[in-house]
Amino acid sequence: MPKTIVQTQDIQLDLPPGGLQLNDGKVLTEVTVAYEAYGTLAADGRNAIYVCHALTGDAHAAFYHAEEDRDPGWWDELIGPGKSVDTDRYYVVCANILGGCKGTTGPCSINPETGRPYGTAFPLITVRDVVQVQKLLLDQLGVPELYAVIGGSLGGMQTLEWAVRFPDYVKRCICVASGVSLSPQALTFDIIGRSEIESDPNWAGGDYYDKSAGPAAGLSRARQIGHVTYLSSASMAIKFGRDERASPYPGQSSLFSTNFQIESYLSHQGSKFVKRFDANSYLYISRMMDMFDLVAEFGSIAEAFRDVKSKFLIVSISSDWLFPPGQQLDIVENLVAARKNVSYFQIDSAYGHDAFLLEYETLGRAVDAFLNGADPATVNGSGNLVDRDLICEMIEPETRVLDVGSGGGDMMLSLTKQRNITGICLDLGFDEIVECMSKGLPAIQLDADEGLKRIASDAFDCVLLNQTIQQLHSALDTIRHMLRIAPACVVGFPNFAYYRCRLSILLGRLPVSNTLPFEWYETPNIHLVTVDEFRQLCRQNDIHIADIRFLAETVVGRLLIALGGVNLGSERGLVKLTRA
Amino acid sequence: MPKTIVQTQDIQLDLPPGGLQLNDGKVLTEVTVAYEAYGTLAADGRNAIYVCHALTGDAHAAFYHAEEDRDPGWWDELIGPGKSVDTDRYYVVCANILGGCKGTTGPCSINPETGRPYGTAFPLITVRDVVQVQKLLLDQLGVPELYAVIGGSLGGMQTLEWAVRFPDYVKRCICVASGVSLSPQALTFDIIGRSEIESDPNWAGGDYYDKSAGPAAGLSRARQIGHVTYLSSASMAIKFGRDERASPYPGQSSLFSTNFQIESYLSHQGSKFVKRFDANSYLYISRMMDMFDLVAEFGSIAEAFRDVKSKFLIVSISSDWLFPPGQQLDIVENLVAARKNVSYFQIDSAYGHDAFLLEYETLGRAVDAFLNGADPATVNGSGNLVDRDLICEMIEPETRVLDVGSGGGDMMLSLTKQRNITGICLDLGFDEIVECMSKGLPAIQLDADEGLKRIASDAFDCVLLNQTIQQLHSALDTIRHMLRIAPACVVGFPNFAYYRCRLSILLGRLPVSNTLPFEWYETPNIHLVTVDEFRQLCRQNDIHIADIRFLAETVVGRLLIALGGVNLGSERGLVKLTRA
Repeated sequence: MPKTIVQTQDIQLDLPPGGLQLNDGKVLTEVTVAYEAYGTLAADGRNAIYVCHALTGDAHAAFYHAEEDRDPGWWDELIGPGKSVDTDRYYVVCANILGGCKGTTGPCSINPETGRPYGTAFPLITVRDVVQVQKLLLDQLGVPELYAVIGGSLGGMQTLEWAVRFPDYVKRCICVASGVSLSPQALTFDIIGRSEIESDPNWAGGDYYDKSAGPAAGLSRARQIGHVTYLSSASMAIKFGRDERASPYPGQSSLFSTNFQIESYLSHQGSKFVKRFDANSYLYISRMMDMFDLVAEFGSIAEAFRDVKSKFLIVSISSDWLFPPGQQLDIVENLVAARKNVSYFQIDSAYGHDAFLLEYETLGRAVDAFLNGADPATVNGSGNLVDRDLICEMIEPETRVLDVGSGGGDMMLSLTKQRNITGICLDLGFDEIVECMSKGLPAIQLDADEGLKRIASDAFDCVLLNQTIQQLHSALDTIRHMLRIAPACVVGFPNFAYYRCRLSILLGRLPVSNTLPFEWYETPNIHLVTVDEFRQLCRQNDIHIADIRFLAETVVGRLLIALGGVNLGSERGLVKLTRA
Repeated sequence: MPKTIVQTQDIQLDLPPGGLQLNDGKVLTEVTVAYEAYGTLAADGRNAIYVCHALTGDAHAAFYHAEEDRDPGWWDELIGPGKSVDTDRYYVVCANILGGCKGTTGPCSINPETGRPYGTAFPLITVRDVVQVQKLLLDQLGVPELYAVIGGSLGGMQTLEWAVRFPDYVKRCICVASGVSLSPQALTFDIIGRSEIESDPNWAGGDYYDKSAGPAAGLSRARQIGHVTYLSSASMAIKFGRDERASPYPGQSSLFSTNFQIESYLSHQGSKFVKRFDANSYLYISRMMDMFDLVAEFGSIAEAFRDVKSKFLIVSISSDWLFPPGQQLDIVENLVAARKNVSYFQIDSAYGHDAFLLEYETLGRAVDAFLNGADPATVNGSGNLVDRDLICEMIEPETRVLDVGSGGGDMMLSLTKQRNITGICLDLGFDEIVECMSKGLPAIQLDADEGLKRIASDAFDCVLLNQTIQQLHSALDTIRHMLRIAPACVVGFPNFAYYRCRLSILLGRLPVSNTLPFEWYETPNIHLVTVDEFRQLCRQNDIHIADIRFLAETVVGRLLIALGGVNLGSERGLVKLTRA
């Protein structure tokens, strides 16, 4: 296949009268933006996706600059015709950020006041300023709203800033491996990195552009420190171990050098980086990243997200220690608490933070499902849920429901269609989350035991837990959490006192049936329960049973239920609980 | 209480003729060692404990140097009269390491050949050299053997070197938060740190001792990087968060400085360190730590530990990312595989690597139990184990047994006393591990599901799993692992088909009894089993039942068993399995 060739374009922004007012009060009178655009803007302008790049990225997100280029743009695996961010379908824009050194105005640009490069005369910038420039660019390109904004790391911070600052403009927000602020640990590596550059004599207070040498040694070491934070301990162990090279990397040798490959690799990464990046840009952008803090600005994450309107897909990486998964879960928790539309999954990867540039199989499937998910009203659910109608009956229409252990979302789909319910699916499986999103249902990938703890009180009107309670470690804690999260919950469970179970036990065999289909040594059903004992548990713990239904698929079972022998006749129970 | 005042003493080592031959072939003709000693060497000399310090530590491990000192020695919480390393009982020695700058010969010492400080003329040293010097010191102090050697981090590496190099001399080895080598990730921080120092113009090729300024800036940044690796992300978040100071730390201010407390804290740590440590010592010792690698030296950890004779206590810290717990588990696995006497536990702490200098409650209890544990032959076990004698009968005498889910070791104690068995206890609880060690039984703190996977094939003659299988996630996997680890295993389990259980179920209640004492929603017994189904599982999976016993505490139960109704009459089953 021939390579698609694209070019980075420069555009002079039409600034408001008086210039671009920055967050800290300073003004830029001229701003040039280097950007790339792929695909075609629809007539109604509603198909635009903005891509935010990370710390040292640029506008070249996809395709090739020249036929002879070996490497395409940095997110080419994700963006292109027929790819997750489908350029046949969407108009995709990516620009170098303000403060950068890849074409957009930054410290190495000419200061119109002096005719010389800004250097440290460039104002301190914020993520807010960066996004403001992106908005001006999109205005100028005639984009009336964003179908989606997507980015990872510092790019993820920009997506959050977009959603918070322009709630009506942004319809979907995909935030990968990022957070509402950097952790103190992550800050320290940036702080030390900047100190490297500033203490390099060749930095010369930032005024090195017309000198013979810049702060290459300091910038190289800053990059080396940064680079370690993008990898994981496991990926470094796999990639390098403690293997040695025949000889050290040229220029690296000293009495205390080692021959470890990792030492050569780091030297090489540092040297390569120095050739492509400006030290002052590194100082400005890394400090900007350090200062980004939606909590400090709004008082809390909840307050920051109060007025957002977009749908969110939050993505974490299991081995990311620069933005560990807890930071993305903080975002998810707060969006759920604010009753927003949020999906979440974790990329299970050894690659560390860098996984957002590597794990395209997982990331691509999820981004595809999220961007291109159907309207739930038009989807037909699969599977034959025997208790579907009963559950629909037990849940109030037009409410917000959390379905714990949702699987692929078939029950939620029925609730959406039959009862006009909006809700969120919660499941442990990645495939299930993707299936939910592809049906247009928001879905969160979490273990039920852990997940319920993370969801705020009163975030929902009802929690559904069907055929899952027997697999959880503490049923009582689970019920308590459900009734904290919502004033009502519906629980469905297999009844171990069903007459067929009793007969089996009487004959000395643990029951294996449709409802209990596993052998004893492999069953995920770790807590067996009976209708009577479930009722007793509720009684003893002041949990109010508002409604209870009994299901049996055998004639004998139904007869026993009709005669009042529900503990004997029910194959499963369906209970609606409310706060006492 | 008045402070106990101690002094660091200097001793000129009696070197072999021709001087001290170092690992790399070079020779030191004079070696001075700075050491402290507490307590009294016993007449038989068998009560000496050697304490190994970490990267930047010194000989001052305990007590005070002067009445006015605010801080005692670095491990004072652990060492002293009545403390875990009891100076009323043991003769405790700690010395500054070779290459150091706290009194022992190092790069800042006078080179007898030139009359000037060595600087980089000092030879590259290894942990082996460091331990060799410690051995010469102990010889000179008249210590015929070490009751124990103990150390954390680089000190832990020294304890391993001691055990490997002097197997007859070292009776006990306590290795805390350390490993057989540094991980590639940990290496990188050292590599960058050394590059900081070497690229500081004031380092001057290491020849800065008579200059007005040394490489303070480089050493300070190296320390800052190192310091981050001693903390955990969680502890930094707790201690500093993203809080700001009123003003930056003096001398730290620049355009790109932040007011974050962590930035001031790091600057302060760097400056403080520069006053107390020599840059060349830092280069030599950090490189020595990087190069320590028992695997590279011996081919494998197993080979390195082949001839060790000491008892081991290996300690990990849950949040340590410099020496993550997997590294200590590697040591434990290999010692178990080599049929050595090894105990292990994990300090559950948010403090990161530094926890070995902070978590004295946990560390102290375990070190106390390990050092001062009784002779099992003299201990009386508690508890009334109904199946004690049956189990003793089923296990061959004079063999090596792993007791999975051992609790406080009562069963192992009986096996030791009645059957002359040696073995290792495995339990998840820290209290249980301490109880085992205090009875003189080696004990490993691991989850049974996870722990069995980590134990090498044929590391034991028999594995005992009593009243635990019903709490594990996969009984079949567990049995397979047990028969991989040993040619035989003994499994005891509650029989869910016991007639009283059946009656209970028949009445629609899940059974609660002595053997099954939990309510359904909180029971740890997640996989119920019956005698018949256990036998069936074995049959279907080619697992040979070499012996089976049935226990009942009721007359009816015993009668039923006598009549052949074992599945109905047994309250519990006891099965000996062997490879098919």
